[in-house]
Amino acid sequence: MKTFKMVRGMRDFIPEEAEMLRLIEGKARRIAQLYGYKEIITPVVESYELLAAKTGEEVRARMYAFKDLGGRKVALRPEFTASVARLVATTMRNEPKPLRLLSIGSLYRYDEPQKGRFREFWQSNFELIGSEKPEADAEILLLTNSLMKSVGLKNYAFKIGHVGVLRGILSREGLAEETQNRALQLMDKKQYEDALSLVKDAGASEKCLTLLQKIVKVKSSNISKVLDEMKKLVENCKEAYEAVNNLAKILELVSEAQKLDITVDAGFARGLEYYTGIIFEVYVPELDIALAGGGRYDRLVELFGGEPTPAVGVAHGMDRIMLALQEQKAPLEFQGEKTVMMIPVSEALNQEALRISEILRAEGIPVEVEVMGRKVAKALEDANRRGTSYVVIVGERELKEGAVTLRNMERKEQSIVKIEELAEAIRTGPR
Amino acid sequence: MKTFKMVRGMRDFIPEEAEMLRLIEGKARRIAQLYGYKEIITPVVESYELLAAKTGEEVRARMYAFKDLGGRKVALRPEFTASVARLVATTMRNEPKPLRLLSIGSLYRYDEPQKGRFREFWQSNFELIGSEKPEADAEILLLTNSLMKSVGLKNYAFKIGHVGVLRGILSREGLAEETQNRALQLMDKKQYEDALSLVKDAGASEKCLTLLQKIVKVKSSNISKVLDEMKKLVENCKEAYEAVNNLAKILELVSEAQKLDITVDAGFARGLEYYTGIIFEVYVPELDIALAGGGRYDRLVELFGGEPTPAVGVAHGMDRIMLALQEQKAPLEFQGEKTVMMIPVSEALNQEALRISEILRAEGIPVEVEVMGRKVAKALEDANRRGTSYVVIVGERELKEGAVTLRNMERKEQSIVKIEELAEAIRTGPR
Repeated sequence: MKTFKMVRGMRDFIPEEAEMLRLIEGKARRIAQLYGYKEIITPVVESYELLAAKTGEEVRARMYAFKDLGGRKVALRPEFTASVARLVATTMRNEPKPLRLLSIGSLYRYDEPQKGRFREFWQSNFELIGSEKPEADAEILLLTNSLMKSVGLKNYAFKIGHVGVLRGILSREGLAEETQNRALQLMDKKQYEDALSLVKDAGASEKCLTLLQKIVKVKSSNISKVLDEMKKLVENCKEAYEAVNNLAKILELVSEAQKLDITVDAGFARGLEYYTGIIFEVYVPELDIALAGGGRYDRLVELFGGEPTPAVGVAHGMDRIMLALQEQKAPLEFQGEKTVMMIPVSEALNQEALRISEILRAEGIPVEVEVMGRKVAKALEDANRRGTSYVVIVGERELKEGAVTLRNMERKEQSIVKIEELAEAIRTGPR
Repeated sequence: MKTFKMVRGMRDFIPEEAEMLRLIEGKARRIAQLYGYKEIITPVVESYELLAAKTGEEVRARMYAFKDLGGRKVALRPEFTASVARLVATTMRNEPKPLRLLSIGSLYRYDEPQKGRFREFWQSNFELIGSEKPEADAEILLLTNSLMKSVGLKNYAFKIGHVGVLRGILSREGLAEETQNRALQLMDKKQYEDALSLVKDAGASEKCLTLLQKIVKVKSSNISKVLDEMKKLVENCKEAYEAVNNLAKILELVSEAQKLDITVDAGFARGLEYYTGIIFEVYVPELDIALAGGGRYDRLVELFGGEPTPAVGVAHGMDRIMLALQEQKAPLEFQGEKTVMMIPVSEALNQEALRISEILRAEGIPVEVEVMGRKVAKALEDANRRGTSYVVIVGERELKEGAVTLRNMERKEQSIVKIEELAEAIRTGPR
């Protein structure tokens, strides 16, 4: 007989894993509430053109792209931001700013599968749209820190850079945006030499090359030191200097509100082309993939046909956070409810068992009812294995008195309880 | 400037819609808890072969199928059951039965868009795996009724049939399964004449054709009457007769536990090929599409390489339920929390505003912080428009005393409150 397999790179979550992912999702939803973000839901399938517009060559080449039955070129979203920007530029264009939007769901990239990297992955994505102020960037950093803290992650750290520094240096040389994009993508992959020779070939001056060589090495968790170094290097380049100032202001705002573990990395770039300001990622020592990443993108909404609209956002890799928690052996706490198994002593009492189950559920008590036609002893064994808190045994004799047998599985004690008192007995009884 | 559009047939949920869909999802999760179902998460992208195996010609032709970058023929899932059966036949094959599994997510079919029918749609899907007993079928009907009731739907009704009746009649004539499938698909589309001539061409006897003609018309909400009629018609066809008996037993079990509005329709068929027993759908008068549909499929897990495993399940169309609620003007109740907007009187106080916001959030109070650099009057206007419960105004003078101004927006009252007493003041104050 043939066994059907999962598609390579995809992933199933069995119940324990699904519960963990949903708990992380729940934490993200709670953070959204606390910071005033409202959820929107956009489709997994979008036009190829939209998704490809500003996503960068790297991601573009790995999209799940195809033609639908109507001949439209479509793709599975590799990230949320293009869809959010589309919605903000169209249906929601008249909504007053700031707009705080949450997206949660699955995304798709044809990457080489590796630890923590699947071709279907899950993110919670926060976008703060309409503000160019450093308070907005600070908020995105703060809510990301709050999420990491609230799921119980340890030893995580922020890596922070600013696209405006590198772009400022390249712009002063008059390099085309296209060239800048390619240079930043090479830097994103730590291919600094290739980036430099690309920039050189495009006509950058020796002075610029020397500056780039120096600045990409500036990196420290001593924030005031690293910012001073950056300022000194770019003091003759207005655009880059302003970028460093912007970064300094954001980090200052953050520092008073929460304690973040930050490394500023002046040579840090991210694969997506649309960033214009601060960029950041979150890491734990146990994994070499980012758990979250984000930044400012002030021109994307405009590119998609909306008004010029500054924006900043972050995506949290929910399945990566889950993996990090597993690696750190810091599993989330599950809030278990008391569970009940309902066992009729004979087939003739099945109907009564169903009826009494419904009474308990109406009172908010979870009930698994015996549907295998097993004898009581066998079903009790199963209840024990499943860690059921209580078993209700429905027997002819007790039923005549309007009662059933209630058994506490942990204590191995049982008593006869009237049906109308059953819910209360379970609710107030020991676990 | 170019505007990017959503792909035809897809759908965005703006915040009010997303909130409603997630509330329905929450109700489905609660029902899953109450009936003992554990969630699994399977990928949207599955092998074409798996999804096409037993889904029926109708759905097969409308799948989003394509080759991935590795040349694999894949498709976006048009339903959950094939994926669940795959998981149960492979990774979870050693899990003790019964297995109660929940799936929640989006699905894809290239149908002609119409009211309530999108090409991306959302379902909560319950499968009870491992039991062939009528108690299992009854449970699936009961939990579906519980969900419809819990979201506040009115005047919904179950349409119930049994594939075993029609298949029993066709099997006695020795008709191949392939022919049976095509006949049932025609019946599903109410093309009874085409179905009959197909069956006739395949060699069915006159007696069989007459019986089919009669039985597909048997339909009533008087359950005992309709079951008697069916039994009388098929009394000489053992397999069909047993199917009617099975249906009778299930409906008897259900009737004691909850009150369902049921119409039994002997000519009812469903598009998916894998059903072997009871089938059902749920309708409201306001819409002509089903809000939920399910049935028994005893051979699917085996087909996918597992042990022979009886199973019964249901899918609830969450976006359709949402539409039905909107049509019935019976919107779900939203549980609003008190919300706070934090406004600094000057830029110099932004950092303090962020810090105090974090204090409130740590106490579980949602705060939107001013990030537009607006003057207090302007920001207050915005807070008013958004229905914010409280505004905290951070001013130089009050801050010197470790305090801020707390304004109740509804009552238009304000007072000076110490920062350490702020959370409590908001929590215990009027909405």
